[in-house]
Amino acid sequence: MANTVEKYFDLVDQNQQKFIETLREVVAIPSVSGDATKRGEVVRMGEWLQERWEALGAQCKRVDPGKQDLHGEILDLPPVILGQYGNDPSKKTVLVYGHYDVQPALLEDGWETDPFTLVEKEDGRLVGRGSTDDKGPVLGWLLCAETHKQAGLEFPVNLKFCFEGMEESGSEGLDAIIVDEADKWFKGTGVVCISDNYWLGTQKPCLTHGLRGVSYFHLEVEGPGADLHSGVFGGTVHEPMVDLVHLLSRLVDTNGRIQVPGIYDQVMAVTDEEESTYEGLEFSHKALATDLKHDVIIHDDERATLKHRWRYPTLSIHGVEGAFYASGDKTVIPARVRGKFSLRTVPNMEPAKVAELVTKYVESEFAKLGSKNRMRVIETHGGRWWYSSPNHPNFVAAARATERVYGVKPDLTREGGSIPVTLTFEENLKVNVLLLPMGAADDGAHSINEKIDKRNYIQGIKLLGAYLHEIAETDLN
Amino acid sequence: MANTVEKYFDLVDQNQQKFIETLREVVAIPSVSGDATKRGEVVRMGEWLQERWEALGAQCKRVDPGKQDLHGEILDLPPVILGQYGNDPSKKTVLVYGHYDVQPALLEDGWETDPFTLVEKEDGRLVGRGSTDDKGPVLGWLLCAETHKQAGLEFPVNLKFCFEGMEESGSEGLDAIIVDEADKWFKGTGVVCISDNYWLGTQKPCLTHGLRGVSYFHLEVEGPGADLHSGVFGGTVHEPMVDLVHLLSRLVDTNGRIQVPGIYDQVMAVTDEEESTYEGLEFSHKALATDLKHDVIIHDDERATLKHRWRYPTLSIHGVEGAFYASGDKTVIPARVRGKFSLRTVPNMEPAKVAELVTKYVESEFAKLGSKNRMRVIETHGGRWWYSSPNHPNFVAAARATERVYGVKPDLTREGGSIPVTLTFEENLKVNVLLLPMGAADDGAHSINEKIDKRNYIQGIKLLGAYLHEIAETDLN
Repeated sequence: MANTVEKYFDLVDQNQQKFIETLREVVAIPSVSGDATKRGEVVRMGEWLQERWEALGAQCKRVDPGKQDLHGEILDLPPVILGQYGNDPSKKTVLVYGHYDVQPALLEDGWETDPFTLVEKEDGRLVGRGSTDDKGPVLGWLLCAETHKQAGLEFPVNLKFCFEGMEESGSEGLDAIIVDEADKWFKGTGVVCISDNYWLGTQKPCLTHGLRGVSYFHLEVEGPGADLHSGVFGGTVHEPMVDLVHLLSRLVDTNGRIQVPGIYDQVMAVTDEEESTYEGLEFSHKALATDLKHDVIIHDDERATLKHRWRYPTLSIHGVEGAFYASGDKTVIPARVRGKFSLRTVPNMEPAKVAELVTKYVESEFAKLGSKNRMRVIETHGGRWWYSSPNHPNFVAAARATERVYGVKPDLTREGGSIPVTLTFEENLKVNVLLLPMGAADDGAHSINEKIDKRNYIQGIKLLGAYLHEIAETDLN
Repeated sequence: MANTVEKYFDLVDQNQQKFIETLREVVAIPSVSGDATKRGEVVRMGEWLQERWEALGAQCKRVDPGKQDLHGEILDLPPVILGQYGNDPSKKTVLVYGHYDVQPALLEDGWETDPFTLVEKEDGRLVGRGSTDDKGPVLGWLLCAETHKQAGLEFPVNLKFCFEGMEESGSEGLDAIIVDEADKWFKGTGVVCISDNYWLGTQKPCLTHGLRGVSYFHLEVEGPGADLHSGVFGGTVHEPMVDLVHLLSRLVDTNGRIQVPGIYDQVMAVTDEEESTYEGLEFSHKALATDLKHDVIIHDDERATLKHRWRYPTLSIHGVEGAFYASGDKTVIPARVRGKFSLRTVPNMEPAKVAELVTKYVESEFAKLGSKNRMRVIETHGGRWWYSSPNHPNFVAAARATERVYGVKPDLTREGGSIPVTLTFEENLKVNVLLLPMGAADDGAHSINEKIDKRNYIQGIKLLGAYLHEIAETDLN
C-alpha cells in the first residue's frame, strides 16, 4: 500500500493546476437550489457529475425525488445521483455522500469578485461559491478515482456514492431515497464517509464524531379574541406578551444554564478518555472573540466553550411570532403570541423525554402566574443527536490517513449543529459514519467570498485517497 | 333661551331625514387620509365643508400644512379648514374641532354593504365609513348652525372651528397650525369642545374629562456583531434575546402591576369626589368579556377595571424588533434585539421622571444578570396626560345640555388612550377643553360596519346646539 499511496500523492501534486481548473469548471455552474430560476443549472451540475463518473466506468443511477413547491412554483426536484465504482467482492465497500448544489450568491452581496468565477488568490485562497461547500470535496472523490485510473493504480475499495442537489434547501426528498435504497443500491456498504464540514481552526485537520440534536418548541399564549389598544385595555386584561416573557425568562439564564428540571440528568458524564480528546485542540477564545466582533463569551476557558458547543445541551430563544416586530412604535396588545425556542440535545437525551420535561415545566410555571390566558407548548421538531466512538476502525483509518498527509494526529471534534443525513445513513445502513472535513474553519461556507485554501483542496484530495487505502487495510469488524 | 332651544329641538326632529341625507352625501366622499390614491377625495371633503359654511355666511381660511412623504410618494397634505361664524363681542366664543378624513374601508374587509354608501338599517343603525368617526359630529355643528339660520333663531355664540383631514394619519401638520394661530385665528376663544370620542356604553351619554399620557420605550440588547447559528454558538455566548426576556419580565406582572420602583409614588390618590363619579356608570364586565371573546379581565369589579383604564398607570409589552418573527422554525441567535413597551401615564406623573425611573430600574436589573452584552433604554416618545375638572363651567354647561336632550345626568368618564390635540389646544389657547361624544361604545369607529345610531345622530345634533345655548348662559370665569 505504502508505495501506491506515495505514487498517488506525487500524481496529485503534479496535477494541482489541472484540479484547480476542474474546480473552476464546476464553480461556474451556478447550481443554487434555493433559486427557482437556477433549477436547470442544478440539474446540469448533477448531470456533469454523472457523465464524468460514467466516463470513468462507474455505474450510475439517477433518482428523481419528485416535485417541490417553491414559494408557489411547482418544480422538479434535482436528481440524486447514485453510483457504484468497482464491484470486487474481495474489496471493502465505502459509501460517500456529498452535495452538488450551493448557497445563493450575488456580487452585490459584497463579493470581491464574481462568485461563480473561481479566483486563485496570492495567499492561496481559491475563492468561489461552492469551492468548499461542497463542490471541492465532491470533486475530491472523483479526482481521486480518475488519478488512480490514469496512472494504472489499483483502486483500493469499491466506492458507492450518493450526491444530492438539495442540501442547501433542506435535502428535500433525500431521506426517502436512503430508506428505500438501504437494502438495494447501498447494500454491502461497509462504512460511510461524508466530507461536508470544517476543521475546528485553520491549521490542523480533524475528524468529527458527534453532532447535537435539536428539539424545537413554540410556546403559545392566547388572550383576547383580537389585538387590543394598549390605551384602552392596558392594565385591565392579562396580556399574552407579558405572560410569554415571564415564561421565556424562566427557561434559561444569561449564562446559558437551562432551568428546566431534569434536563441535565440525561446528559452523559465526561469520561477521562473524552477529556483527553480536548488536549491540544486548535481553538482559542481570542480568535473566537475576534470572529464575534464583541467578546460575549460566557465561559472562562476554551475547553468549557467547546464542551458547551459539543456535549452539553443548550437552549436558545429565537424570537416571537404574532407581536409587533417592525421598527418604530405601535401601541398594540397582541392577542396571540408564539415564543420560539430550541434545545440542542446530546447523548443520552431522548427527544420525547425532552419534550415531556419542557412541557411539564412550562405548564407548572404558567400555573404559578395566575393568568386567565391560554397557554400551550408545541414541539415542532425533535431530531436526535449523533455520536460515534472515535475508536471505531473507520475513524482509526481516517486518523492514519490524516497523519500520512498532514504529519499530525487529527483533532477529534464534534459539532454543535446537526447534519441530519449522518443519522439517516447510520440508522438505515447500520454501519459506522465518519465525518472527514476538507475545508478550514474560516472558509465562509454560506458567506460572501467563500473559499477553500489551495492547501486544503490539494491535500484534501490526497486525504480522501489515503483514507480509502487505509480502509482497504482495516478490519472493520 | 328655553323657548329657542325647544324650537330648535322641534326643527331637528322635523329634519331628521334631511340630516340623514346630508350624512349620506358626505359618507359617499371616500376621504381616506391613509390612501395616497384617495388624497383628492380628502381635499374634496374639506372643500365641501368650507363651501357649505361659507354659504351660511361663515368666514373661512384654508391652511395648507405642506407636504407629506407617504411610503415614498410626496403628497400635499389636505387643508385644515379654519372658520369663524359670527363675531358679536357680546357673545362668548366657542372653538370646535373635528376631522373630515376617515379610516380605510373595503367591502372585502367584511363590510355587509359598500362602506361609502350610507345604509339605514331597521334597528336604527346608520352604517357607513365615517358615520360616527368623525363626519357625523362634524356635520352636527354645521346642521346646528344651518337650522338656526333657516328658522331665524339667534345663534347663541360666536363659533370658531378647526376641521382637519389627517386625524386618522397622525394629524400631520396640525400642531404647528394650532401653535401659530393661537393668538391669531383662535384669539378670543372662551372654551373648546371636541366631539370625537364615544360613550362608555350604548345607552347613556357621557362627558369625558381625562386622557392618559403615553411614554414609549425601546429596550435594546446587543451582543455579537452578527446573527449566530444556535447549533454552533448556543450555550457559549450571552444571547441578547435571553437577556431581553429577563428584563421585560421584570417590568410588569401578569396582573398588570408595574414593578418599576417609584412609579406609583407619582399617582394622585382617589378622592371621595372622584370615587362618586364611578357610581351608576354604564359599564359591565359581562359586556366587556363578550367584546373580548375570552374573559381575560384582571380585576374583580367594574370600578377597578375603569380605574386601571383611566386613572392608574399601566405598562404593556408590544413586541420585539430584530428577532425571528415569521411562522415556522429558524435556529438563529439574533445579534441585536429591541423590546418595545410603553406606559400609560396619569396625574401627576411627569414623562421625564417616568423615563428616569424606568431607565434606572432596567439598568440595575441588567447589572444583576451579569451579561457581557450591551444594553440601553431609549425613550422614543413621552406625551403627557390630560385632565380637566368636571366642575368647570364648560362641563357644567355640557351636563345641563345633556340632561335637556337625554333626560339623564351624563356619566363622567376618562379615556385610557390619548387624543393629543386636546392637550395642544389646552396648552396653547389656555382655555378649558371639553370632550363631548356623540356616538356610542359599539359604533366600531375603525372597524368594519362602522355606524352611528340614528338616535345618537339626531339627539347629538340637538346636544351640540343645546350645549352652545348653555354656554351662552354660563359665566366662564
